[in-house]
Amino acid sequence: MTRIAYVNGRYMPQSGAMVSIEDRGYQFSDGVYEVCEVYEGALIDEAHHMARLDRSLRELRIDAPLMGRALPVVLHEVMRRNRLTNGFLYLQVTRGVAPRDHGFPQNSVRPGLVVTAKSVDPEKGNLLASKGIAVATTADIRWKRVDIKSVSLLPNVLAKQEAREKGCYEAWLIDQAGFVTEGASSNAWIVNAEGRIITRPAEEGILRGVTRTTLLKLIAELQLQVEERSFSLDEALSAREAFVSAATTLIMPVVEIDGHPIGDGTPGPVAQRLRNLFHDAAAKSK
Amino acid sequence: MTRIAYVNGRYMPQSGAMVSIEDRGYQFSDGVYEVCEVYEGALIDEAHHMARLDRSLRELRIDAPLMGRALPVVLHEVMRRNRLTNGFLYLQVTRGVAPRDHGFPQNSVRPGLVVTAKSVDPEKGNLLASKGIAVATTADIRWKRVDIKSVSLLPNVLAKQEAREKGCYEAWLIDQAGFVTEGASSNAWIVNAEGRIITRPAEEGILRGVTRTTLLKLIAELQLQVEERSFSLDEALSAREAFVSAATTLIMPVVEIDGHPIGDGTPGPVAQRLRNLFHDAAAKSK
Repeated sequence: MTRIAYVNGRYMPQSGAMVSIEDRGYQFSDGVYEVCEVYEGALIDEAHHMARLDRSLRELRIDAPLMGRALPVVLHEVMRRNRLTNGFLYLQVTRGVAPRDHGFPQNSVRPGLVVTAKSVDPEKGNLLASKGIAVATTADIRWKRVDIKSVSLLPNVLAKQEAREKGCYEAWLIDQAGFVTEGASSNAWIVNAEGRIITRPAEEGILRGVTRTTLLKLIAELQLQVEERSFSLDEALSAREAFVSAATTLIMPVVEIDGHPIGDGTPGPVAQRLRNLFHDAAAKSK
Repeated sequence: MTRIAYVNGRYMPQSGAMVSIEDRGYQFSDGVYEVCEVYEGALIDEAHHMARLDRSLRELRIDAPLMGRALPVVLHEVMRRNRLTNGFLYLQVTRGVAPRDHGFPQNSVRPGLVVTAKSVDPEKGNLLASKGIAVATTADIRWKRVDIKSVSLLPNVLAKQEAREKGCYEAWLIDQAGFVTEGASSNAWIVNAEGRIITRPAEEGILRGVTRTTLLKLIAELQLQVEERSFSLDEALSAREAFVSAATTLIMPVVEIDGHPIGDGTPGPVAQRLRNLFHDAAAKSK
């Protein structure tokens, strides 16, 4: 089936979908994005993704690409045209097309908007989760506004690639004080020996993950003990469990960090339970 | 006259020139670039720009987009087709087009190459230089690999825009220790009370500017006193002169920093002399 993309007002086959060479996303990484899960035909955490997108755009002073409900309409139309039942929507908004110049365009330009869809069998993720993933750590060398979900992702690319080459699925980024910030494309969590779930506060040099936020609500509902604080690599290595969260992987158990097994080296019960309950929790937190 | 761009093997009108929405430059800022001055029909510092491009590509492990002398041939063909006598060539190389995934593409992909030309009357720059520019400082929040000339430029965009809104032409970035790193799109220089020219070493968190390198040779030739060391904002404010260097602006006197006049508030003699001698020096340092 031909995949259909939405590009600046038009639906077209994704394989030929293009943007201008003067799109500021291409020349300056002057844009933001969201990746949203689609599960059993439902766009998961839609309102939260839209709210975060709005915030990213506001922080960069990029105009909204579409007004009011028009953007959600496009997202659902892309889902429909791609018969997307399980998988992801990717959407990218850039400042628009303008003659190359670092500063914002002097004349008002229309922001660029691209939306694509990708079908993924959810069993693939479940199979991976049943085994758990290995993580490799690397220095967090990103810029200081990682709270904005921008396409300025080159450091994340390099961290992910470094992890892959070590046979790992994800990279955990370590700040100068030795604390874990987040994954290259996920938030990081541990469960300590006392069973407390620990994750870094969204205010401290990480992205406020949509899946992370929904997960915190689920944790509160289950009356599990949680601490929003930074944790060190040492603390992670001696944790009972570890996991990551992201729209693409949901809750994914981490069984190994830098070659050291976490807990007994198999997916932990807390991560598995949260994964199993996640979609119901997301449906409730709409 | 229609501007002609080179895009992935083809020459075409720039206004309709496009790249795939899955170009990794667009989705991940996974690419590098060069801006080269063209003066009186000559591509200034060509060999140095090509050498720096090679280094950027190597650091990111992106393959060369064209082999051997093919890239310089394309650059000169773009100059020819645009009848470019004075102005700039812009070239951007990205890792290529691949399904979105942070890690490098698993299958080998062809790097993307875009080259554009822009005519600029050199008198515009000379007029600006005769008045000098104002600079505004802001915190350097960039990632730690600014030695790579990547298109991950969002922090530079924000810094430049902030400076513009303060009525300034350029932003100077200040590191956590209070030292000037470089401009948003230039290298930073001062001349202190003893007449010594000071600029930050290329090894310390800045880009090794091509114009900067040629300028250092010119300074050595003129037997002027130079110190490659970091300088603080305070030192800059009390300097006799300040200036920036870049392929786009050449040597551009700075007459004001954060509203404080530098020296007597007019372009200084060292900057003016270096500017006047620059093109001859570049021709010699081929």
